[in-house]
Order: sequence, then structure tokens, then C-alpha cells
Amino acid sequence: MTDRPLIALALGDPAGIGLELAIKALSDEETAEAADFLVIGDRRHWDEGVAQAGTDLPIADFYTGAFERRAFLDLAHANTDNITVGEASEAGGRTACANFRAALKLAAAGGADAVCFTPFNKAAMRMAEADYVDEIGFVQRAIDTDVHGSEFNVLDEVWNARVTSHIPLSEVASALDQARIERAIKLTHDTMEGAGIAAPKIGVAALNPHAGDGGNFGREDDEIILPAVEAMARKQYRVTGPVPSDTAYVRALKGEFDAVLTMYHDQGQIAIKLIGFHRGVTLIGGYPFWIATPAHGTAYDIAGQGIAHPGATINALRLAARLCKRDNPAGFPEPYERLGSAADVARDAVAGKHVAGLS
Amino acid sequence: MTDRPLIALALGDPAGIGLELAIKALSDEETAEAADFLVIGDRRHWDEGVAQAGTDLPIADFYTGAFERRAFLDLAHANTDNITVGEASEAGGRTACANFRAALKLAAAGGADAVCFTPFNKAAMRMAEADYVDEIGFVQRAIDTDVHGSEFNVLDEVWNARVTSHIPLSEVASALDQARIERAIKLTHDTMEGAGIAAPKIGVAALNPHAGDGGNFGREDDEIILPAVEAMARKQYRVTGPVPSDTAYVRALKGEFDAVLTMYHDQGQIAIKLIGFHRGVTLIGGYPFWIATPAHGTAYDIAGQGIAHPGATINALRLAARLCKRDNPAGFPEPYERLGSAADVARDAVAGKHVAGLS
Repeated sequence: MTDRPLIALALGDPAGIGLELAIKALSDEETAEAADFLVIGDRRHWDEGVAQAGTDLPIADFYTGAFERRAFLDLAHANTDNITVGEASEAGGRTACANFRAALKLAAAGGADAVCFTPFNKAAMRMAEADYVDEIGFVQRAIDTDVHGSEFNVLDEVWNARVTSHIPLSEVASALDQARIERAIKLTHDTMEGAGIAAPKIGVAALNPHAGDGGNFGREDDEIILPAVEAMARKQYRVTGPVPSDTAYVRALKGEFDAVLTMYHDQGQIAIKLIGFHRGVTLIGGYPFWIATPAHGTAYDIAGQGIAHPGATINALRLAARLCKRDNPAGFPEPYERLGSAADVARDAVAGKHVAGLS
Repeated sequence: MTDRPLIALALGDPAGIGLELAIKALSDEETAEAADFLVIGDRRHWDEGVAQAGTDLPIADFYTGAFERRAFLDLAHANTDNITVGEASEAGGRTACANFRAALKLAAAGGADAVCFTPFNKAAMRMAEADYVDEIGFVQRAIDTDVHGSEFNVLDEVWNARVTSHIPLSEVASALDQARIERAIKLTHDTMEGAGIAAPKIGVAALNPHAGDGGNFGREDDEIILPAVEAMARKQYRVTGPVPSDTAYVRALKGEFDAVLTMYHDQGQIAIKLIGFHRGVTLIGGYPFWIATPAHGTAYDIAGQGIAHPGATINALRLAARLCKRDNPAGFPEPYERLGSAADVARDAVAGKHVAGLS
């Protein structure tokens, strides 16, 4: 038994800053101490990341070497001739998809406690798999579940959840109803409690400017959000709102809320990226294992230069480790004990997909 | 002739922090040097502000005293018995409306170069004048014009303009068209040039998450915003976009843009209030005189306690002074020369309105 959880770390888009970030983050001592890591990708990309980062980081091959805090699961699948640093490509997208799928299958088979990944490029993902929409849809298919996990952003101890996400702004208002907001409040509360934050204080953002200004700038705040907040407050949830969205984060940072529940994507993202572009973590809950990744993207404009900031990746790995922590200080089986057959399952599944085009 | 412009400063809602802010801002030496000020309100509120701020600030009565850098135009109109600190009231709203209207009429009559005001409370304004919607509508009526002025936020040298403002979020997408965005780009450019910022770089925010992600999350970014940006770029405007709105301000703060043009109210306000709640200025252009006010509100929760931060008010007064500055270092007539009849016009108009309910 060990006192460290095991995290499957999938390398993201190989044309972006993700290779370098993985090396830099795992070179961080406190992060390396927080968990055991199985890095999943093509070994040539690991070596490329080492060169980009300018930092050597020894890592054993999972199938042949020892597992000393970390090991590398080499899928040896990348079509490296067709991947250029700083450019979205089908080959890059295919590699990233395979890495992520392997990590998810491995965790679903009980082989890891959490999945982390370095940034994906949506365009590349879609070149590889035309029906790719976002990470949650990908997860659902990879582990064959209907559960729609929920996405959170975590930054400086403030959580952000959203009622709607990747939809046109024109559809946001009509997508809201009282039940949906109540469910989102409950899910946020339950997830945070699961993460060890007792009775979290949740600020619910208003939809319209000035929270609708008494109905002058829209009625959803008074007619949908307020009743949802009141109903949940009656059930003893610590919930406040509708809070004008331009001060929701200002108030959260002062300690008034542990989480901000936003109605649409950019309502939270504008704030989060301003507060800490280099620190924010995207967290997906609702599955038997946590999924965490830096909130920023592949940053093609600075890829391969060794100047990418690993702060968010470090925070993602540490947060995942913290969320998995058990009360038992030596409660995790040794990596090989857990990973043996699960890693084969993952690799074979990916290889099958890659070779034969099977789902 | 003097080297200082003349600013009409209307006291805002007397139940909020506006009285104290006026005193504190005018006590700031650099601000007091930047312009001459005619403060407009009820003299009892000035005295109340002095007590709240804990700072005495001598000011002559405009009608009887000398004009030494500042004077007070006493409308003596407030129903002070019905105004309670920290509470929105009809009496408070009526007072603020009258102050603002007097300042506008005075400036429209050539009596002042700019109008500033301390924060209003929308609910109180509406108690006093049921059809009050926002400052721009109020200005239009007060100075009898159809011109729809444009509102900018200015913070740390970054300007924010918006294509839509006080409308429900559900109506934003349908309110956008290419011509409207092109007009907003031109107006932003022209206003900033008028303010002395040559060839400003304008970042145009996207409407949808990830700028629509190639059409997956909405088509307005590709079909409306991009063509508008391209058309204006062909006309030599320095314009970039659609920029995903969650990084537009991050990029502006790094110097990439002098202005961010947002599609809706909170898209800019979330960023601005996070960056500098105490510093942001709201500026209205498009009239023969500038109008500036702190971007924050009445802060009823801390009103009357002497703890309000005057930073944004100071910035509003200084910005207005800077915008009015003429090339001629001693180009402004002495205050009395300008104000004599204009102040009477303003006072009489307000008195008429107040007494007889005339528009």
C-alpha cells in the first residue's frame, strides 16, 4: 500500500505546449510527491517535451521498467511525420484522442484514481474525430456512459460551475428553467462537499445586466433564477442570488462565496482568465474518477519554445491528487497491482480504435 | 482667461456614497488643480458630505461668493426629511435628477465644458421619474436631442465600448448586424481620436463561447462580426476580431488593444469591475460636452461611514478635465464670464420642473 493516489496523465495536442507542460509539471517536486503518475502518449513526444522544456526527467517504460513515482505508457501510435509544432493537424488530434481515451478506459477499469491531460486543440480533435464536440461528450463515449458530467473551474479556491456551456449565446436564455438551475446548485454543492468543502457558499450569477434591473432589462432573473435560489435556500443550501454578474467574482474573491454558478460560458471564463490565466484548472466531476486539466489552451503561438508557464498544469495535478486523497494515509495499492490488466485493456482498446477504426 | 476647463459636478443619490465622494475627490490636490468645478446640489447635502468624509472643504456659494477654483450652485430643493442614508427614495431620486438635469442644461448652454456626477441609484431615479431608463435617455431629454450618445468605460488606459447595453441577454444576438458593429467601431475610433488617442487599436469581442468555435456554438461571430471587422480593417481602422471574449481584456491589458468593443453589457463589465472596481470611469461621448462618472454604484451598504474609496471619482474628474484640455494653455474664459446666465437657465429650468412638474 502507498499513500499516494495514481493519476493517469494523458499528453494533449502534441503541436501545442502540452508536452513541455507535462515535463515541467512533473519536475515540480511538490507535485511529484502528491501522486504516482502514469503518463500516456507516444514516447517520442515525451522526448520532444524534454527537449522543449530543456529539463531532463527520467521516466521508466511502464511495460519494461520500474514504477518509481511515475512511468510512461507508450502507445507508440503517433504519425509524427504529419505533426508540426504550432499547427492543428489530424495526426495530432488523433494522437491526443487516443491518449485521452486510454487514460479514461484505464481509470474506468479501476486502474487510476483520476485522469489529467494537457491541453487539446479542438480543431485538431475534430479533424481526427469529426463528431468531437467537447471533453464531456468524449468521456461519455470513451467509458460508455449516459452520465453528463459537470465541469467546474477552480481558481484560487473559488469554484465556478455553469448552467449552460458550449451553446450559442442566443440560446442561453431559453435554455434556463428553474429546475435546471436548482439541479446545478445541488450538483455544485454535492461535488464540492465530495471534494471536502463542507457547506459551500454558492453565489448564483444573474443572467441580465444589473440582474434585470427589476424587469427592465429582462425577466429571467426575477422569474427563473430568484425562485430557484429561494427554493434551494429553503432546503438549507447556502445560496445567494441572482448576483449581478459583473460583481459576482469580485464578491467571491473577497470570501463571500466559495463558488459562483454562472448561466453561460463566458460569464465565468472572462473573470477566471483575468484573475489567473496561468493558474486556473478545469475539473470534471460526476464520474467514478475525477478529471482535471489546465483551463488554458494549446497556445500554438508559443509552442516548442520552452516558455510555457506550467502553473495551471501543476494546479490541475495537485487538485486531482488532493481530491483523491483518502483518510487512510497509506490507502492506495501499489501501481503495478492496480495497473497490470487495466493498462492492457486501455492500450488494446486504443490500438484497436487506431488500427481498425472501431469505436 | 484661465488654463483650466470648467466642470459641472452634479451630486448623485444623496443616500449613497456620492456626497462623501465629491468631497474626497475635490480634496485631492491634483484633481482640484485640473479644472474649475461648479458643484450642483442642495447645500445641506454638501455639508452632510463634509461630515461623512470627515474633511472640511471650503466652497463659496455661486450666487454670493467668489469662484476660487470651485463654487457651489445651491438648488435648495431637497426634501431632506424623506431621505435616509442607505435607502432608495423618491426624494433622493428627485434630488439627483434635478442636479444632473441642471448640470446638463448648464453645459448645453455653454456654461461648462464637461458634466460629472457621483453615483445614481436607478431605483430611486425611477421613483422620481417613472420613465427613467438610463443616463443616456435622461441626457437626451434634458438637453432635447435625438442623439444617442455612446458610453465608454475607461480603466487603466483601456477603453471599453459596447454594441448593446441595457437590454435583456436574450435580445443581444438578434440586435447585432454588420452595419451596427461597423458603426460602433467607427464611433469608438472617432471618440478616442477626439480624446487624443491617435489611431487606437480596437479588439472586437466575439459573441459566442470560443468565438463560436467555427460555427459549432453559434454563427454570429463568423457571419456578422468577422465581416464587420474585415470591412473596417480594409478602411485602415486598426481592428482585430472576433476575439474570444474571455481573453479580450487579458490581451488589452498586455497592450495589444487600446479599446475592447464588447457585444453586450456584462461582457465588458465583468472584466472592468474585476480589474479595478475602485478606479473605472464611465464616459459618455457624442454630445457637445463630455460626461464622466465613476463606474461603480451608490454602495448603500457602506454609505455615510466615511470609508468609500474616491479613486474612480477622482479618475472621472481628471479624465473629463484631460479630455477638455485645449491646445491653448490659457484658453478658457473665467468661470463667472461663462456661467452667469447659463447657471440661471439651469436653475430656473430645474425649479420649474420641480415645482410645476413640467418636463
